[in-house]
Amino acid sequence: MKGTVLYGPGDVRFEERDEPTILAPTDAIIRISATCVCGSDLWPYRGRQAITGPTPMGHEYCGIVEDVGKAVETVKRGQFVIGSFFASDNTCPHCHAGYQTSCQHKEFVGGAQAPLLRVPLADGTLVATREVPHDDLLPGLLATSDVLGTGWFAAEAANVKPGMTVAVVGDGAVGLLGVLSAKQKGAERIIAMSRHPRRQELARAFGATDIVTERGEEGVARIKDLTRGVGADAVLECVGTQESMMQAINSTRPGGSVGYVGLPHEVELKGQELFFSHVRLHGGPAPVRQFLPELIGLVCNDKIEPGKVFDLTLPLDQVTEGYRAMDERRAIKAFLRP
Amino acid sequence: MKGTVLYGPGDVRFEERDEPTILAPTDAIIRISATCVCGSDLWPYRGRQAITGPTPMGHEYCGIVEDVGKAVETVKRGQFVIGSFFASDNTCPHCHAGYQTSCQHKEFVGGAQAPLLRVPLADGTLVATREVPHDDLLPGLLATSDVLGTGWFAAEAANVKPGMTVAVVGDGAVGLLGVLSAKQKGAERIIAMSRHPRRQELARAFGATDIVTERGEEGVARIKDLTRGVGADAVLECVGTQESMMQAINSTRPGGSVGYVGLPHEVELKGQELFFSHVRLHGGPAPVRQFLPELIGLVCNDKIEPGKVFDLTLPLDQVTEGYRAMDERRAIKAFLRP
Repeated sequence: MKGTVLYGPGDVRFEERDEPTILAPTDAIIRISATCVCGSDLWPYRGRQAITGPTPMGHEYCGIVEDVGKAVETVKRGQFVIGSFFASDNTCPHCHAGYQTSCQHKEFVGGAQAPLLRVPLADGTLVATREVPHDDLLPGLLATSDVLGTGWFAAEAANVKPGMTVAVVGDGAVGLLGVLSAKQKGAERIIAMSRHPRRQELARAFGATDIVTERGEEGVARIKDLTRGVGADAVLECVGTQESMMQAINSTRPGGSVGYVGLPHEVELKGQELFFSHVRLHGGPAPVRQFLPELIGLVCNDKIEPGKVFDLTLPLDQVTEGYRAMDERRAIKAFLRP
Repeated sequence: MKGTVLYGPGDVRFEERDEPTILAPTDAIIRISATCVCGSDLWPYRGRQAITGPTPMGHEYCGIVEDVGKAVETVKRGQFVIGSFFASDNTCPHCHAGYQTSCQHKEFVGGAQAPLLRVPLADGTLVATREVPHDDLLPGLLATSDVLGTGWFAAEAANVKPGMTVAVVGDGAVGLLGVLSAKQKGAERIIAMSRHPRRQELARAFGATDIVTERGEEGVARIKDLTRGVGADAVLECVGTQESMMQAINSTRPGGSVGYVGLPHEVELKGQELFFSHVRLHGGPAPVRQFLPELIGLVCNDKIEPGKVFDLTLPLDQVTEGYRAMDERRAIKAFLRP
């Protein structure tokens, strides 16, 4: 089969790879129905995150179970399933606490930008839909695999509750679905921080009530203006830079919460600054597995349309164009079909 | 009158000072019934925190209202009152949210190690008892002014709930009252980290079920051992150093909470380390004013005995011995009576 492999900055190739096989009795092999390029794929693509060698890319996936190992009990051949970027046993204490991305046996799932994918710990990791869904639902269902689950966790980690004023830092697909998540959780006012007209439009479609184009200290001042000097009750940090993190912390009212899901790159928080900010800080790799049943339900029942973040659809063999379009911010997120 | 003034490292003096007077119509003047030396006073006393000039010391206080400004409405002359180290109006949005130490009009209250003290924003800051309490209650009531309120906030910020396993980093008076607070909030297991026999004993008296003497990475390993590799549900950080902060974060299970109340000194948190720890982080200067009514009630009704942290009682004019005894760890906390 052909799959996507990153060789170095800007050098992503769609090339011949071995087909995956069952390695452990708890594995499953999935025939990918749809996959996509993640904002986090851009960090190594842009050379801002080191890779140790040629790296099979892609960790967002949904598809049909092709094969299962001998110890797999609940996942069956022919089912349509969705999983997260970390495989988890879903039975350890961390999984029971809802933190499957800290599972004591977690394993990264890589190489999903390909026709076939091996998923470890299949019973714990994969969630099946009742029936094989219509193609129209694929974008929404694929979104639950990471980008929606991550935006949702940002809202959870920021303790978004009905009636709150919420700010979202970052207008990538995660930030936009953070807006959708805050709306679903009953936020009254949602301030999206974006200077990109098409992304602003999508933010509004997902429920944003205000748009702030300023960044850094000016962005903070604008949020304070909009909240009578108080700050937002909850802020979703969906970027992962020093500037975005401080923008999130400083936009939050004392006692308010920052939910951060952008993988921090060279971020350092000064203890005293954080101390006197009085904010609550929670985040990390989103435990998407926890949210999958609920999010799949919302998509299948047409309650939400997270698939709207895919504004570029390509056949999988044009995956390199997907990377380029996202790198150049021509596309928000590229949807790929084998 | 004579009051306590810090001139530089190790140089604290009890010397003649002007008596405080009403400066703003919202001020009150308190005749101090009892005051004490705070662990945070030791930072500048030890030269680890700069002072800009001779500094009147002391910010923990209770006493009788001697005089009030014209705009003071609820606080009356002759009442016994307790206040926090930050004066607050108790009406602004941050106060309403329970974060009086982030009050939009907050003012630091300094110079309490003296017979008389000026307290700004008296109506918002001071809480009166029903009647002037018996001397026996003074240590407990004085403790509510800061050290208990701070330990209590550590437990609140760490989301301590009934049945939880809680670890406490720091065996100073705040840490010990963090143990008491966790016990009051229903923690099932309380692990105190201390290598000091007398403090261990007091920790046990306040409710600690386990003592861990190891520190740093060894301390973390010990907490993991005691929790089947999972980590504590909640950790109270009551020191404020890089080591203590990382000890707290790394002792917490994913999804668990760190409540930090030790003023951080040269602490820097690496974004990615925090991200993958999956902990919740909350803390800051304890909004003691929020807790005063509840804590005063618990003391007056003999439900708790936080005054036990005072293991050295001195007349105020021997305040310098109080600093020395605490600096040399001969005393946990020095209680001073004018």
